[in-house]
Amino acid sequence: MHTDGWIYLDNNATTPLAPEVFEAMTVWLRDQFYNPSSAYEAARPARDAVERARESVARLLGAGARSEVIFTSGATEANNAALWGALRANPERTHVITSSVEHPAVLEVAKEIQRLGYRVTFLPVSTRGTLDPKDLLKALTPDTAVVSLMHANNETGVIFPVGDLARMVKQADPKVLFHTDATQSVGKVPFRMESEFQAVDLLSLSAHKLHGPKGVGALYVRRGARWRPYLLGGHQERGRRAGTENVAGIVGLGKACDLARESFVQEARLRGIQRRMEQQVKERIPRVLINGEGADRLPNTSNFAFEFVEGEGILMALQDHRILASSGSACTSGSLDPSHVLKAMDVPFTAAHGSLRISTSRYTTEAEIDRLVAVLPGVIESLRRISPYWDSDRNAPREGAEVFIQGKFRKEG
Amino acid sequence: MHTDGWIYLDNNATTPLAPEVFEAMTVWLRDQFYNPSSAYEAARPARDAVERARESVARLLGAGARSEVIFTSGATEANNAALWGALRANPERTHVITSSVEHPAVLEVAKEIQRLGYRVTFLPVSTRGTLDPKDLLKALTPDTAVVSLMHANNETGVIFPVGDLARMVKQADPKVLFHTDATQSVGKVPFRMESEFQAVDLLSLSAHKLHGPKGVGALYVRRGARWRPYLLGGHQERGRRAGTENVAGIVGLGKACDLARESFVQEARLRGIQRRMEQQVKERIPRVLINGEGADRLPNTSNFAFEFVEGEGILMALQDHRILASSGSACTSGSLDPSHVLKAMDVPFTAAHGSLRISTSRYTTEAEIDRLVAVLPGVIESLRRISPYWDSDRNAPREGAEVFIQGKFRKEG
Repeated sequence: MHTDGWIYLDNNATTPLAPEVFEAMTVWLRDQFYNPSSAYEAARPARDAVERARESVARLLGAGARSEVIFTSGATEANNAALWGALRANPERTHVITSSVEHPAVLEVAKEIQRLGYRVTFLPVSTRGTLDPKDLLKALTPDTAVVSLMHANNETGVIFPVGDLARMVKQADPKVLFHTDATQSVGKVPFRMESEFQAVDLLSLSAHKLHGPKGVGALYVRRGARWRPYLLGGHQERGRRAGTENVAGIVGLGKACDLARESFVQEARLRGIQRRMEQQVKERIPRVLINGEGADRLPNTSNFAFEFVEGEGILMALQDHRILASSGSACTSGSLDPSHVLKAMDVPFTAAHGSLRISTSRYTTEAEIDRLVAVLPGVIESLRRISPYWDSDRNAPREGAEVFIQGKFRKEG
Repeated sequence: MHTDGWIYLDNNATTPLAPEVFEAMTVWLRDQFYNPSSAYEAARPARDAVERARESVARLLGAGARSEVIFTSGATEANNAALWGALRANPERTHVITSSVEHPAVLEVAKEIQRLGYRVTFLPVSTRGTLDPKDLLKALTPDTAVVSLMHANNETGVIFPVGDLARMVKQADPKVLFHTDATQSVGKVPFRMESEFQAVDLLSLSAHKLHGPKGVGALYVRRGARWRPYLLGGHQERGRRAGTENVAGIVGLGKACDLARESFVQEARLRGIQRRMEQQVKERIPRVLINGEGADRLPNTSNFAFEFVEGEGILMALQDHRILASSGSACTSGSLDPSHVLKAMDVPFTAAHGSLRISTSRYTTEAEIDRLVAVLPGVIESLRRISPYWDSDRNAPREGAEVFIQGKFRKEG
């Protein structure tokens, strides 16, 4: 992987393109340019390549039919298309249920829908980041058009039992459409649309989260689901997504799915790395939380919260050690706001700003994680040394610090 | 160009990727994978590459500011975003004006909007494919939110005087948004958003029509235009188009724009080829029309209508001569319907089915067109020989054929 000597632990942001994916794409950029919609034989290889890629995506998802896969420009479009398409197909229903920890590509659509007069329920999560199924059942009304709940959270890796939740919803009201944003989990854990996920109607995924190219993704639409296309125009994708097909990107996504299927053996390895890393960090650094600990989580994601430290400082210091990670928060430079996910999880105010998201991939080595675990205690210690709230001699917060910070937060809030 | 010995004259469908574009993209696929939104320095080259590409697009359009360019997944998304965004930003207005010869990516949105209760006016065109500005003025109401008129028609190459039309609309009502789908003209004729097009608020373009990659395009949004984003989610593109940036694709579009600016000298050459080809075809083949003849047209597009012939037959026969073109009609196999564009132009019923769209590019050589002109008379003659309506001895239609076919069409219509 071309990380120029960096240890790249930010794979939930994006992943390095697999060399095999680049190889597979090249011919469709350099040598073959025909429009798959052109009727002549010369364009047939492009059409066939798109269909082979569709088969690869369908197989990774365990879908019942290739035609259930619609290619999009990425997960954001897939999420937008899922929600708008569900609402337009069911105009008599005007209520949407989602969670408070969704990705912005669902949350912002939900807010726009709200602005346009729909009713939206944002389900809360527990301090572990989990959903209470009872909350979902209570939120359902005869007016509910669609439930959109993410599969794995991009910040914490917490997995919602989407298969079960969807079954529950369908039992209560078979007419409600169930959508899941699976952007962070496809390629990391197995999918079975025909069994475990048989009640899920719509599922979003993105190529660049599984070592595929940026700018391409897919929306799974179960056959028979009451959904209307979102991008309108030409007859591409059987009339369900207009626009000339991004052949090279689609081929790249297909190849990425093939590689992911072949590398599910990695799941156990990544889980091992995750377990060891989290244990060692907790042993070596006082006052650290693991957001979502105890909940079902992705094998590749660990969201640490170091009390009395700023996440930005951790990231800067890690960069000095050639390690790239993220705070997992959407905060832009200077903003004091912790992420909406951690807020929804009610992470203690002393810790909400000190989050560090480590997200690995099948290319991550144990040596890289060893390096992280070796430097992290020193990083946190130096940052705490310059904090007015931390007593470095005792390696513990100063007396009263927690009350003081809480006051400060309350004032700001 | 990798056309495997084919003479490729279907550049309005898609264009071969320029080798320089492939070169420019490679590094962003193979070597650099960071997410442009990541805060760390390692991601800065990706951010910078996106901004350089934005500058290239802005320069090709003669835009006032780079920030007026928003990257999309292609012209279809740009068209969808332009129309929905204009309507959402101006909810008090519920009328849309467009033309009957737009690309499906505008027409289908207009029809969906109509289905949702908006009023839509589809302006007619003349037999030459031109608009009557008076029709546009008459259609304007205090309720009109947006006017969407394409710049150059994809089937005929007929150019609407969009700059003038937009000025006229703005003079009548400065609050109406003016959008143009310039997918077929960007890169083929010069643009000046700050002078000729100063009244145009929104403009769509696609990379793969100008030797860039498929799956990327742009929407020009004039600063200050009342428009709302369409794809919602993350803060990319200054909050105006969510979704991780397709860095390689965007870089490819930028490079394609640079190359197009450098090759405007080609415009005169292509016009010369076009003039000569049309003249020779008319000299050598009886009963041929040029759809849009006499109107302002793209230098690369010629839409012939050969009477008493089926377009599909022409395409098949040309393929035997290793020439790829298209009928320019949206008809799928077996359909007897001529395209909505030719229908709107009221092309004679004897000719509407015999259309042949020749679309060249800067890679098209005179020798290739010479070859087309050499084989075309024989192709048309053989097809007419098997037509019951054609008298090959006289090289003219059989007596009564026109009346007979008209009756046949009337019955079908």
